[in-house]
Amino acid sequence: MDVKAESLKRHKQWQGKIEIVPRCELSTRDDLSTAYTPGVAQPCLAIKDDPEQAYTYTRRGNLVAVVTDGSAVLGLGNIGGLAGMPVMEGKCALFKAFGDVDAFPICLATQDTDEIVSTVKAIAPGFGGINLEDISAPRCFEIERRLIEELDIPVFHDDQHGTAVVVLAALYNALKLAGKRIDAVKVAMSGPGAAGTAIAKLLLKAGVRDLVMVDFDGILYPGKPGMDWAKTELAEMTNPRNVRGGLHEAMAGADVFIGVSAGGIVKPEMIKSMAEKSIVFGMANPVPEIYPDEAIRAGAFIAGSGRSDFPNQINNVLAFPGIFRGALDARVKRITDDMKLRAAAALAALVPEGELTRDNIIPSALDKSVSEAVAKAVAKA
Amino acid sequence: MDVKAESLKRHKQWQGKIEIVPRCELSTRDDLSTAYTPGVAQPCLAIKDDPEQAYTYTRRGNLVAVVTDGSAVLGLGNIGGLAGMPVMEGKCALFKAFGDVDAFPICLATQDTDEIVSTVKAIAPGFGGINLEDISAPRCFEIERRLIEELDIPVFHDDQHGTAVVVLAALYNALKLAGKRIDAVKVAMSGPGAAGTAIAKLLLKAGVRDLVMVDFDGILYPGKPGMDWAKTELAEMTNPRNVRGGLHEAMAGADVFIGVSAGGIVKPEMIKSMAEKSIVFGMANPVPEIYPDEAIRAGAFIAGSGRSDFPNQINNVLAFPGIFRGALDARVKRITDDMKLRAAAALAALVPEGELTRDNIIPSALDKSVSEAVAKAVAKA
Repeated sequence: MDVKAESLKRHKQWQGKIEIVPRCELSTRDDLSTAYTPGVAQPCLAIKDDPEQAYTYTRRGNLVAVVTDGSAVLGLGNIGGLAGMPVMEGKCALFKAFGDVDAFPICLATQDTDEIVSTVKAIAPGFGGINLEDISAPRCFEIERRLIEELDIPVFHDDQHGTAVVVLAALYNALKLAGKRIDAVKVAMSGPGAAGTAIAKLLLKAGVRDLVMVDFDGILYPGKPGMDWAKTELAEMTNPRNVRGGLHEAMAGADVFIGVSAGGIVKPEMIKSMAEKSIVFGMANPVPEIYPDEAIRAGAFIAGSGRSDFPNQINNVLAFPGIFRGALDARVKRITDDMKLRAAAALAALVPEGELTRDNIIPSALDKSVSEAVAKAVAKA
Repeated sequence: MDVKAESLKRHKQWQGKIEIVPRCELSTRDDLSTAYTPGVAQPCLAIKDDPEQAYTYTRRGNLVAVVTDGSAVLGLGNIGGLAGMPVMEGKCALFKAFGDVDAFPICLATQDTDEIVSTVKAIAPGFGGINLEDISAPRCFEIERRLIEELDIPVFHDDQHGTAVVVLAALYNALKLAGKRIDAVKVAMSGPGAAGTAIAKLLLKAGVRDLVMVDFDGILYPGKPGMDWAKTELAEMTNPRNVRGGLHEAMAGADVFIGVSAGGIVKPEMIKSMAEKSIVFGMANPVPEIYPDEAIRAGAFIAGSGRSDFPNQINNVLAFPGIFRGALDARVKRITDDMKLRAAAALAALVPEGELTRDNIIPSALDKSVSEAVAKAVAKA
């Protein structure tokens, strides 16, 4: 299949990947007078008296806004809110198909942090959750933080935390196969953007002690010139051995490499320089830092990527539908680190002991039962 | 049926009157890689290069935002955006059922004019049209005007123009039965709010020359104290005989009464004071200015209301699905007065000559074929 041509063809046929359908009958006079005027006044008054009733009488409790400013769409960069719409619609379709969550795309005309925050706050009443999507770092960190503080519904930047959860799940299983403990491994990462920052922080929460983050101009360390506030913070939390240099230096002797940066930057000799039974997740899209087969040929023990045409596809769809399903079901106000850790553990546990192999460390992205297990783990937390 | 109890019961069962469903298959690896990554990059790039392609590759061309700040919901007054959600969901369900338009509720957390304008502008890229709903006058006039000026998609305040179109359609047929010409009748109106102002202006465009508007404190005339800018403008356009007084004075000798104000304010003796073959549309919700049967008993020739339990139900659902259907199909940037006039004429023409009676001046609100005729009229204009 020529994915590019086929995608354009199908998108033209679909004329949109989502649609909005009634859940109520609208055929008789009684239907109209209960669903609409005059009967609709009753649920309105009930909600006016007690806003919580919106979760009983409207769709709010199952509705998530998928919000983007189009500043960091896939590997395409800053293409703007409208051009990001096909991705947002795809995400919304996946939300429904995999998590039975009703998600709606909000493609913004602004990339101003204050305007994004005020816009999302202004439209929040109708939603049970906010999924931020494809907003560039470091703006995404501030936008997420402010919205979490100011709204009483869960706000979740999937590029950060969805990715982090799935990476951690894959890492749990890979470490099991490699016979290594998470608190004993050396982790090298490339790409301190939205995803990389969140992955690093979640790995630290999960027990990783030795993590070295490489930016395009070298390894992060406290005091490195040219870092924004987010990288400064990350530098303080990582690189305990105070390694200097670039990707070569970071990967030498590392047990784990996780890339969320740029295609093709990892060379076979870097893989060879890693520790025994190395784990390599190159997740740049669509071209990974190193293709999984190439990594294995260079000596990696386990390799994964974001691609569906190789084993071990580390795909957000394994996390976000279940995380929101659980958050909506339990009506939590925030998605906590504990929920993310439990979601990762639940996701890892979905690969049964007997089926866990170097080519099968994570469930299939097509497995629609995954979200239920993730949802339960989140709701439990 | 006890409408109030039944409405609460059904709303609880529905848990929302709309949901969002995928239009694409998401079962195979090929499905995922065309609808989502990596294939989805292609329509994104196509739209980045030519924003018009959003109408080809996304749902934008069929998506309407139903936006409210909850400041004037039904007859309930200012109950806020969230409490207005059941009405907005109902509207969205009707949009789909009657016009095959995908409509999504946006319930705002703000009632500030500037914030409403900036929020709607910020979320506009994903929508093909904006339907403003239940926003109080005179703010609704400014919000609508500014959005029309600043956006290149149709913006339509249904409480104003949807109501006006259906009233004009009903009036066309009622005048036909009464044997009166629109440019020769005296029209008395009560309620210079959003709907009343728009009805008055559309009637003037349709040829009415003698229209007297009554506010709660009396008939509008140029220079009347206490008027806001919108009423001042209306006063300049109406009351050519310079009538003074209140509802009594306005209705004496009038051929037509149209109320969009408050329940029960029109008394039988006022109907008796009207001209021969009088036409009375009391449309306050849920209690009309005068019930149709009471108006007929008092001597009215034709009576209508917003209620489904009396003949001649003058209901917006006859207009808004078709108006947006036509506007989206023709991809117009604005909904003009000409379109509204044609929509009213098309709606009136849907009652065939032979079936036109004093109890049947307007199609049934349940007739799902209506929107097609209205859409054609709008698209033609």
